[in-house]
Amino acid sequence: MRPTVPPPDASFASDNASGVHPVVMDALAAANRGHALAYGMDDWTARATAAFTDLLGTDAEVVFAFGGTGANVVGLGCMLQPWQAVICPDGAHIAVDECGAPERFTGCKLIDVPCPDGKLRPEQVVAQLHGLHDEHHVQPHVVSVTQSTELGTLYTLDELAALVEVAHGHGLLVHLDGARLANAAAALGCGLREMVVDTGVDVVSFGGTKNGMMYGEAVLFLRPDLARHARFVRKQAAQLPSKMRFVAAQFEALLRDGLWLDNAAHANAMAARLAEGAAAVPGVEVVAPPEANAVFAALPPAAVEPLLEWSRHWVWDHERHVVRWMCSFDTRPEDVDRFLAGLREIVAAAVEGS
Amino acid sequence: MRPTVPPPDASFASDNASGVHPVVMDALAAANRGHALAYGMDDWTARATAAFTDLLGTDAEVVFAFGGTGANVVGLGCMLQPWQAVICPDGAHIAVDECGAPERFTGCKLIDVPCPDGKLRPEQVVAQLHGLHDEHHVQPHVVSVTQSTELGTLYTLDELAALVEVAHGHGLLVHLDGARLANAAAALGCGLREMVVDTGVDVVSFGGTKNGMMYGEAVLFLRPDLARHARFVRKQAAQLPSKMRFVAAQFEALLRDGLWLDNAAHANAMAARLAEGAAAVPGVEVVAPPEANAVFAALPPAAVEPLLEWSRHWVWDHERHVVRWMCSFDTRPEDVDRFLAGLREIVAAAVEGS
Amino acid sequence: MRPTVPPPDASFASDNASGVHPVVMDALAAANRGHALAYGMDDWTARATAAFTDLLGTDAEVVFAFGGTGANVVGLGCMLQPWQAVICPDGAHIAVDECGAPERFTGCKLIDVPCPDGKLRPEQVVAQLHGLHDEHHVQPHVVSVTQSTELGTLYTLDELAALVEVAHGHGLLVHLDGARLANAAAALGCGLREMVVDTGVDVVSFGGTKNGMMYGEAVLFLRPDLARHARFVRKQAAQLPSKMRFVAAQFEALLRDGLWLDNAAHANAMAARLAEGAAAVPGVEVVAPPEANAVFAALPPAAVEPLLEWSRHWVWDHERHVVRWMCSFDTRPEDVDRFLAGLREIVAAAVEGS
Amino acid sequence: MRPTVPPPDASFASDNASGVHPVVMDALAAANRGHALAYGMDDWTARATAAFTDLLGTDAEVVFAFGGTGANVVGLGCMLQPWQAVICPDGAHIAVDECGAPERFTGCKLIDVPCPDGKLRPEQVVAQLHGLHDEHHVQPHVVSVTQSTELGTLYTLDELAALVEVAHGHGLLVHLDGARLANAAAALGCGLREMVVDTGVDVVSFGGTKNGMMYGEAVLFLRPDLARHARFVRKQAAQLPSKMRFVAAQFEALLRDGLWLDNAAHANAMAARLAEGAAAVPGVEVVAPPEANAVFAALPPAAVEPLLEWSRHWVWDHERHVVRWMCSFDTRPEDVDRFLAGLREIVAAAVEGS
Repeated sequence: MRPTVPPPDASFASDNASGVHPVVMDALAAANRGHALAYGMDDWTARATAAFTDLLGTDAEVVFAFGGTGANVVGLGCMLQPWQAVICPDGAHIAVDECGAPERFTGCKLIDVPCPDGKLRPEQVVAQLHGLHDEHHVQPHVVSVTQSTELGTLYTLDELAALVEVAHGHGLLVHLDGARLANAAAALGCGLREMVVDTGVDVVSFGGTKNGMMYGEAVLFLRPDLARHARFVRKQAAQLPSKMRFVAAQFEALLRDGLWLDNAAHANAMAARLAEGAAAVPGVEVVAPPEANAVFAALPPAAVEPLLEWSRHWVWDHERHVVRWMCSFDTRPEDVDRFLAGLREIVAAAVEGS
Repeated sequence: MRPTVPPPDASFASDNASGVHPVVMDALAAANRGHALAYGMDDWTARATAAFTDLLGTDAEVVFAFGGTGANVVGLGCMLQPWQAVICPDGAHIAVDECGAPERFTGCKLIDVPCPDGKLRPEQVVAQLHGLHDEHHVQPHVVSVTQSTELGTLYTLDELAALVEVAHGHGLLVHLDGARLANAAAALGCGLREMVVDTGVDVVSFGGTKNGMMYGEAVLFLRPDLARHARFVRKQAAQLPSKMRFVAAQFEALLRDGLWLDNAAHANAMAARLAEGAAAVPGVEVVAPPEANAVFAALPPAAVEPLLEWSRHWVWDHERHVVRWMCSFDTRPEDVDRFLAGLREIVAAAVEGS
Repeated sequence: MRPTVPPPDASFASDNASGVHPVVMDALAAANRGHALAYGMDDWTARATAAFTDLLGTDAEVVFAFGGTGANVVGLGCMLQPWQAVICPDGAHIAVDECGAPERFTGCKLIDVPCPDGKLRPEQVVAQLHGLHDEHHVQPHVVSVTQSTELGTLYTLDELAALVEVAHGHGLLVHLDGARLANAAAALGCGLREMVVDTGVDVVSFGGTKNGMMYGEAVLFLRPDLARHARFVRKQAAQLPSKMRFVAAQFEALLRDGLWLDNAAHANAMAARLAEGAAAVPGVEVVAPPEANAVFAALPPAAVEPLLEWSRHWVWDHERHVVRWMCSFDTRPEDVDRFLAGLREIVAAAVEGS
Repeated sequence: MRPTVPPPDASFASDNASGVHPVVMDALAAANRGHALAYGMDDWTARATAAFTDLLGTDAEVVFAFGGTGANVVGLGCMLQPWQAVICPDGAHIAVDECGAPERFTGCKLIDVPCPDGKLRPEQVVAQLHGLHDEHHVQPHVVSVTQSTELGTLYTLDELAALVEVAHGHGLLVHLDGARLANAAAALGCGLREMVVDTGVDVVSFGGTKNGMMYGEAVLFLRPDLARHARFVRKQAAQLPSKMRFVAAQFEALLRDGLWLDNAAHANAMAARLAEGAAAVPGVEVVAPPEANAVFAALPPAAVEPLLEWSRHWVWDHERHVVRWMCSFDTRPEDVDRFLAGLREIVAAAVEGS
């Protein structure tokens, strides 16, 4: 079954399907003037670093990397010895979407804790703290959570602070995978400082690519001592961009005038619009009101394939016929509306045919 | 001592100090249209891959990566088991400039062979082939060479073929670090096919960043069976760009109409101009006529620091006062000439003062 | 509270607390005659290898190692590439008792599946087979199970064969951690061939240390192609004993005249005696009839500490007050009886006091 | 050509070809009494540890391991982060005889420095200290030397202290591979304290297997802070013996009454006798007077194969026809004399025939 409307220009497959924000693109063009020393010894890197520490209001160490898996690997690589372990939700990107890169690079075990809504709870951390000081067992040393989560949910600032408190209270560090940290901040109406400094997080992967950049992520070390060897870890992880100015210039543009929050807020708004529209389609069940830029919806089984074929995205749960739709900074209202139009036609046909 | 002329706009510190070629920049802007599926499921990736196989004239597997160390790690990671070893020149980038990333990622030993001119000889390979099948010793399995070398020298096509022949004859594979492969091809007047297919090389890191791209390298698997697991290796090495179209679009632009060779030929020509001019400066000894885009020159000791301070670059050999000057696609004749003017003044002052 | 009877000579803490069987001890003394080439180039190694292939009735490759974690690491190291994963019960020794050695050595992820009785079911294997051929996800390639399990339970031969069938049917290999394989064989009344060849297992860690040896384990590669690089893997895993004859001589003694089965049968019988006696103690609940040489019992909370202090062993489940008692080849009936006498006194006092 | 005399009972192939000293064998039998808690929680381990700290006269941390490669890997694993490097002689056991285990386990690069007599000099350490604090280069952090060396030579105590001084002076640690430390101590007429404490060494692999034990090595951490995580590193390296008492009991016997020195002194004396005898054979050139228990001799080319066939040992340098003969604690004078008799016959025939 093929809808009468053409598919939207924007893909709801992933926020990685989006392009580059024009302001970022301009910054790239502007940075392309003459020569600059490689590997971060340039003015853009200094300015982008300062932009981060300004937002954080503290002397964090900032290390730029190529990609999201790379940023996670660099951050975790600075926090862990190989006999230590990471406690994380079972759906964490580091646990299921990075092809084992964290295990291979750090040698560490990831202890995947079942978290049906993507969020780890303090008591789940405590429950893993057994076998301490016993040489037969890996030693939990890092709690890693994602904000917003892989399931589109959010930790409130209090929840985050509570997780940090319990972790620190037991001598563990907290790593935050912030591939979509901007979407969380926009949704919670807070700044970077409130999100990661005031809550006490130790190391953050700050995502740029999914929020309007072409490539590039940042690792923020809020405990600068943890960054003591970060440059070596980054180089060993093959995450040191030679023409660093182009990563830095993008971040400079993204952080200036709150573009990072504006982009994220727009994506979140598009997700809300999409969820509202989808919920109104008979036969479609939006799994939960979207908290950031992801919408998860259960479809009539017969609607799944036709919808995918018409406009590509991913099935999240094959058994329950749940699909995931991601919105981006460049998703337009008309993309959402056209997608909803097609959804309505396909679902109606599926319900009818069944 | 500070010359009366201002330093050149271009830095001779590294070809990584260069910017992005305008044609590549245009390709990036053009690729920034709407949405495209992530991770290489886009048209740009398909076209850039085809551009490579066209140039190669064979069904190579092409895998894009973020950076040069990453490309080397992915290529080597597909060729090696952890108890195997890589035979390479002692000055190889993988041996001395990647912070041990190849060892850490593959677990393998690198056997660094002294190569004063940067070039490995077939008999040096054979000399390392002892302890075979003996469980106490790592087993040499890959010969890795760089073209053009880290010392700016070149393997002729015959030399390359001879290395491959001896390697294959003993059951070893050949990896070619081609961070500056374009400069070599331009200098040798050959194409990609002649360079790596006809000589029999197995896996190539093909450099883009040093030759006019913003970021991005390609791993060419000329024996496709070696690429069987390449996508997993790349993801584990954190070298999978999510917005792949922007890497691919750059390569498409670079490979189209021979831009990769033109850029490299220009850089080589600038190196020749620089070497010729420097050799004419009394007190300066150009170590060898440049074969590609690198110039190595011995300076009067007292000239080293003032020259560095005036226009940044790197001392290659502190004992012999040898510095390295790299030329790029965007080095202009006037940059060279201004640099030579400053060099003349500084060296004259140094010779006088001594 | 301290019982009126002295604690037994034998410890029920672990079968690792046992000594060396006198016949094995004699074999060690007999092997200590003159010189023998190191690293397995000796007659004892040849004979012990032949003893294994005789028992297996097939051309397995046999590789001796120092310890149990080492044997597991060598076996798994021969079966896996770093982007692949192991599916195993969440209580597997490799998952929780080896301090992450398998992850560190192989780089692979262990997918720990909840198995309340220690046994993995075929449908649990199938449920993990998603994300296949997708570079973002580790690729399950090995199913690892323990026989007898860490919870003292057994796979029947049919259950083992069914697991192998589903694994092989999906292109996965099967690894069997047989640290207590002898106890399983004795309990099931089968030989080595029926247990691992007829069921189709691919690689086995065959335990010696817990069954009367001083040290030494064997890795049995029932698919000899998987052993192609085993000697290199073993050496890299630091599991190559230099004076190999002493490991081999022990295995020769253990396998001769069925000593391995006799030792195990005795340990199993002592566990049965212990379980029967403990079940008769009011307040003690034997969790399940012991299938091999482990007894798990729930005690009155107040009895746990006094019992540990009187005769050392381990608490298995602190919340449910479950302790583990292991029997060995050298546990005597009088050890069991004396332990039961103390148990009765301590539990009676605990029940009274509560 | 086959000599008229039968080959000696003892093999000169390796000190690993030797058996177990009777006193050690008795200690093993004596330790085989009843049960003892596993993993080092036993009295033998406590006593053997005390025996070491008594000899050292300082509060070292002592960690037992299965084998020599394992001991090296555990020691180095406690000293290094993956981006750091080890400076060692190019013939070091860790560099050429451990199949890359140190690289694989630690992720670190080994910088192999040419040392024709097996001994590293302070100035060679200094010469490697470039690229410090530069993220592109691995950071030298450990100097590892072997005493006695793989070439049978010795560091004097002053030489060792000088190496330590230069290493410590540059912030590096010193690891000593003492697989044959006893032979060195016996030759230098010093105790363990003079050898490793007074010279300032940080971590030592103390060999037992080559000096009369069946298996087992010790890692001595003379800077106890370096041992903070040693138990985890050991377990991850699969070097934790479960029935630890049997390793400890052997060390207790070896260290008691100076047996370790007596055994070594005897092996050294046999090497001296062998070298003296061999030097008197026309056509045989003893490469250097043996300093410990190894003899290296250049033979007439035609004598090499017949001698190997008659009594197995190893060719050290195929080009110069140099063979290695090792003596052990259990090499008897009559073994030496019989070997010399055969050597004389074979060499005479070879010289005649040529």
